[in-house]
Amino acid sequence: MNASAPGTAGAADRLRLDLSYDGTEFAGWAVQPGLRTVAGTLGDALSILLRGPVTLVVAGRTDAGVHASGQVAHIDVEPIALSRLSPRRTDEPDPPLAGLLRRLAGLLPPDVRVRKISRAPAGFDARFSALRRHYRYRITTAPWGADPLDRVDVLARPRPLDVARMQRAAAALIGLHDFAAYCRPRAGSTTIRDLQQLTVSEFGEQLVIEVAADAFCHSMVRSLVGALIGVGEGRLEVEAPARLLAARSRTAAVHTAPPGGLTLVGVDYPPVAELAARATATRALRVVTAKDSEQPTDPAVGGTS
Amino acid sequence: MNASAPGTAGAADRLRLDLSYDGTEFAGWAVQPGLRTVAGTLGDALSILLRGPVTLVVAGRTDAGVHASGQVAHIDVEPIALSRLSPRRTDEPDPPLAGLLRRLAGLLPPDVRVRKISRAPAGFDARFSALRRHYRYRITTAPWGADPLDRVDVLARPRPLDVARMQRAAAALIGLHDFAAYCRPRAGSTTIRDLQQLTVSEFGEQLVIEVAADAFCHSMVRSLVGALIGVGEGRLEVEAPARLLAARSRTAAVHTAPPGGLTLVGVDYPPVAELAARATATRALRVVTAKDSEQPTDPAVGGTS
Repeated sequence: MNASAPGTAGAADRLRLDLSYDGTEFAGWAVQPGLRTVAGTLGDALSILLRGPVTLVVAGRTDAGVHASGQVAHIDVEPIALSRLSPRRTDEPDPPLAGLLRRLAGLLPPDVRVRKISRAPAGFDARFSALRRHYRYRITTAPWGADPLDRVDVLARPRPLDVARMQRAAAALIGLHDFAAYCRPRAGSTTIRDLQQLTVSEFGEQLVIEVAADAFCHSMVRSLVGALIGVGEGRLEVEAPARLLAARSRTAAVHTAPPGGLTLVGVDYPPVAELAARATATRALRVVTAKDSEQPTDPAVGGTS
Repeated sequence: MNASAPGTAGAADRLRLDLSYDGTEFAGWAVQPGLRTVAGTLGDALSILLRGPVTLVVAGRTDAGVHASGQVAHIDVEPIALSRLSPRRTDEPDPPLAGLLRRLAGLLPPDVRVRKISRAPAGFDARFSALRRHYRYRITTAPWGADPLDRVDVLARPRPLDVARMQRAAAALIGLHDFAAYCRPRAGSTTIRDLQQLTVSEFGEQLVIEVAADAFCHSMVRSLVGALIGVGEGRLEVEAPARLLAARSRTAAVHTAPPGGLTLVGVDYPPVAELAARATATRALRVVTAKDSEQPTDPAVGGTS
């Protein structure tokens, strides 16, 4: 069965997984032979518990070292596989799912956690139904570095940054643009994205950059953050990041910020009644705007960081 | 020179260090031959920068695996050693200290950070001037475990706890008591402590236990937390933790909670004018209440966890 077929789960139950991970020791989300990946680790645990192969479809394919606190994925499961999960407690609303959650907690390593498992509404697709993805990038400019208890998802960059300049540069990037200058190229993938939020906030010596878009092309979030850092340290003009959009291809002026400061914090979905229509529209858009024929399972769409 | 001589730094400058660490990979604060300790790691770095041996005096001697976000220590430094630190920038209030802070940041591993270095006021002693120590213990009872990005200082204990029972048991422990039932015995050390705060708060599935006392004897915080967990899970009666005080010695009924959930979050000092008097009073009290003659540098006083 094709897990990303539009809204059709056949006889299977579609489950939504809400998950978090510390990306430090993972070579990213996507399965890669011989490497420790989030999808590989999670898929292995699910396959053991559900006694068969599992295909994970994810909202945001994070790169190596990128974290997630609000990642969303789905799997399609045969009802028989769920019914075999005998829960220890039966006072819960959906005992097989509660049992699956607890068993996963025991089987997974501490750096990845499935926080919630629920039955997906009709038409739900973790990747294609998503309206937008939210990322957060944290930087500390303290001369002493990052707080040891907080250091896993904060970039230590102990030099001053001009936040007002970064804020002006960020505002000029908002909107529907071709972000090719901020994307690692991938054949057959569109680089037109609707950047809905790019804000820089200051909390003492900590900067928080919040980014939201319908989707992100490969390395886009970290390239945007890298450009803003360039503006903040005075290496780039305030107008440079917006001006670079016209280049339509990557440039050496934009450094890609390190992955450790970046976290996928959330994914927005439309109301249940609009899930299937959104998935259909997303698929059509991606195919129309792609230069070459784009596979519905193209790994670049919904990619990140 | 004796670094803990009351308020006398001779010709040396006394520096106050405010520091944070992730205790996971440390065998506690105190130097131990062949083990990686916070004092050993920090002392080595300071000795390199100040070109000579350094004696660290600390407010709270944390055990292996215990963290700190608000630890305080002091060192005595010859003025000549400070003057040799040529800072890269001279627009700061105290260039030698700013230079020392930045060099320490470069030399120390990421799991320990000195956040602030300041010249200590007259009479300041990180250990003996302290009025009270504050600790925090975090527990999550979520069935899925601890958030991966937050797991370093949260105990994952995925079973329900009765918070109301824990709160009642905690309130009954407040006050000046002999906490021998909650202390690992150490020859010549008093176990009489003034427990000023012991509260249990609930934030969703996370419990935060906040503890403050004038000082803590060895393993006291973790034993108190262990007793409260026993009450929360129904293994101990609500009245048991207070009743155990009368036992005056450790009992198998009290389990010591694991170190990873515990963090030293702060140390209170009196106003500058009262620092020296406080240090003198603390020393006198510790000597009077000890059964045997207590060395001013007795490692148990101000100990923890």
